[in-house]
Amino acid sequence: MLGACTTSVDSMRATVIHGPRDVRLEEVPDPALRADGDAIVRVVAACVCGSDLWRYRGVVPIARPSRIGHEFVGVVERVGTGVSALRPGDFVIAPFYHCDGVCANCRNGVSTSCLRHGWWGAPDVDGLPVDGAQGERVRVPDADGTLVPLSEPPSDALIPGLLSLSDVMATGHHAAVSAGVGPGSTVVVVGDGAVGLCGVIAAKRLGASRIVAMSRHEDRQRLAVEFGATDVVEQRGGEGVAAVRELFGGIGADHALECVGTKESMEQAIQSTRPGGMVGYVGMPAAGAELPIQRMFYSNVGVNGGVAPARDHIAELLPDVLSGAIQPGRVFDVELPLDRVSEAYAAMDERRAIKVLLRP
Amino acid sequence: MLGACTTSVDSMRATVIHGPRDVRLEEVPDPALRADGDAIVRVVAACVCGSDLWRYRGVVPIARPSRIGHEFVGVVERVGTGVSALRPGDFVIAPFYHCDGVCANCRNGVSTSCLRHGWWGAPDVDGLPVDGAQGERVRVPDADGTLVPLSEPPSDALIPGLLSLSDVMATGHHAAVSAGVGPGSTVVVVGDGAVGLCGVIAAKRLGASRIVAMSRHEDRQRLAVEFGATDVVEQRGGEGVAAVRELFGGIGADHALECVGTKESMEQAIQSTRPGGMVGYVGMPAAGAELPIQRMFYSNVGVNGGVAPARDHIAELLPDVLSGAIQPGRVFDVELPLDRVSEAYAAMDERRAIKVLLRP
Repeated sequence: MLGACTTSVDSMRATVIHGPRDVRLEEVPDPALRADGDAIVRVVAACVCGSDLWRYRGVVPIARPSRIGHEFVGVVERVGTGVSALRPGDFVIAPFYHCDGVCANCRNGVSTSCLRHGWWGAPDVDGLPVDGAQGERVRVPDADGTLVPLSEPPSDALIPGLLSLSDVMATGHHAAVSAGVGPGSTVVVVGDGAVGLCGVIAAKRLGASRIVAMSRHEDRQRLAVEFGATDVVEQRGGEGVAAVRELFGGIGADHALECVGTKESMEQAIQSTRPGGMVGYVGMPAAGAELPIQRMFYSNVGVNGGVAPARDHIAELLPDVLSGAIQPGRVFDVELPLDRVSEAYAAMDERRAIKVLLRP
Repeated sequence: MLGACTTSVDSMRATVIHGPRDVRLEEVPDPALRADGDAIVRVVAACVCGSDLWRYRGVVPIARPSRIGHEFVGVVERVGTGVSALRPGDFVIAPFYHCDGVCANCRNGVSTSCLRHGWWGAPDVDGLPVDGAQGERVRVPDADGTLVPLSEPPSDALIPGLLSLSDVMATGHHAAVSAGVGPGSTVVVVGDGAVGLCGVIAAKRLGASRIVAMSRHEDRQRLAVEFGATDVVEQRGGEGVAAVRELFGGIGADHALECVGTKESMEQAIQSTRPGGMVGYVGMPAAGAELPIQRMFYSNVGVNGGVAPARDHIAELLPDVLSGAIQPGRVFDVELPLDRVSEAYAAMDERRAIKVLLRP
């Protein structure tokens, strides 16, 4: 059942972050079923997220060596007695958190606020350890609520696209739906990372008629245009706002997707949105990020969004990934084996890669 | 054509604020038509707004004696050669600002961001003086875009309700639509002033199934319940949040209407809203008001609204006021003649009145 895995059944390899720029692949205990609702998933692909870099860069302090990684797809190896929707052998997509799928918030479509919500790599609500995603196997609490199984095993070419549903594509989509993007909308996307690029895909998919990508990197501009951006604006700050407004009759776009999380990017998004428009934001707010409430008030620009309930969005996006109608897997421009995870972080940190896919 | 007005045609009486707690009715020049799009309106009823108290209380400094008042209904006396939608004798409702009705923002339904937008009592975009509303007559720039005429003169009993459309009822409605209130919604209303009470009316009108009024004043609680509130919460701060959440399965209401504008009231609204819900805010943000972006991000609570485009909402609300289906005029609990305007401010300031109607 452990397939190609060559480590002993008592240990596996997983990524541990020890401190700034100190990421190591280590031997760690193999996960075990600990609750009836658990599943053990063998990771087929994981990746490095922009938010992982916060600890890597020392922006968020690391109290002790910690498991890391929160995006993965894989194959179910074992399930607890309480699991009914999954079977060993199922190929599954994991959102970047786990959730029970049945609480009041899950029923409202906000599984990120699940009353049993937990993050990969940290203890669950019952205090039991949960593995990080950048490893060979993961114990998944509340597996029925957390994992999305595919009806058949995917081709290898589909793996990057499916993995993007774990976080970045679901998050770009969340920005777009939170902003209220629909047929004919005009949209500005602030941020040209993987999430911003997926925001372009999402806006196009939802019918936006005009999509401005704000980017100063030629490779990302090119990808944004291939994904559906109709315009590229390189300027930032006041010049960027002026350039965007000029594209939209002097007043700005109907919607902005804020995919960075800094004070400056939020300002950029709000100022680029026309009066009465809406900003969909998914950039994790950095320290010092704030909202210019006076500007929002007098221009009736709303702000909606937050941490994306990926679990709730996967069902809508999955058919388009499987059919190839959208190709968010293209944001992975570098692929490395898991034992080169340290190199993956460095490539992301130095912006040599948009997003790195890891194969255990 | 000047009807019952007994002052000379060269002067009229209007309210001037000289400093904190110094409001006087004075003889001022009679307004004249100054642009082709102008109308001169004889004020039938005006009122004092909570926001007028900011200058009255010295919170907002007063550089020089200034005309004041921004809510009125009246009868058109004269129109400029460029006015086509109005005729002398028309009974009209004025929103709390003037707008041209044809610019890009007006066409988007955000007339508060009109490119020719202006406030009553301050120079218009062309630098010409505009009268405040607490007076006998007002020069209305861009009259076709600004004023909403009735098809026939209203009964005297309807005057308070029609006047409420000038600001407070339109603003309460804006909070509700900005929050996305619809059939079956659960709603918390923060603020029991005239706008908050109108927010209760608006939520009920839009089909909310449960409406919590947060109020510590018995008379306002009673009015809120008569307007459609199903529950009253007297506590504030953390206790208020806990009480509201308890009413809604521990997670909070679908929507909150923020009708105050302080840091505390915004916090109250956001914390009372369930994950994935939306706050509609119309309270003018006071100095120090801010948005708790981290809380918003992790709970996916959005914030939408701002200064209400009353001109755009009047058409929807007017039939229900005329039919008596909604009775927002009941927020006027004191009525005084214009020459007792100083007393009107004092009654509002001391919270002896919810809202004072003034008759010139």
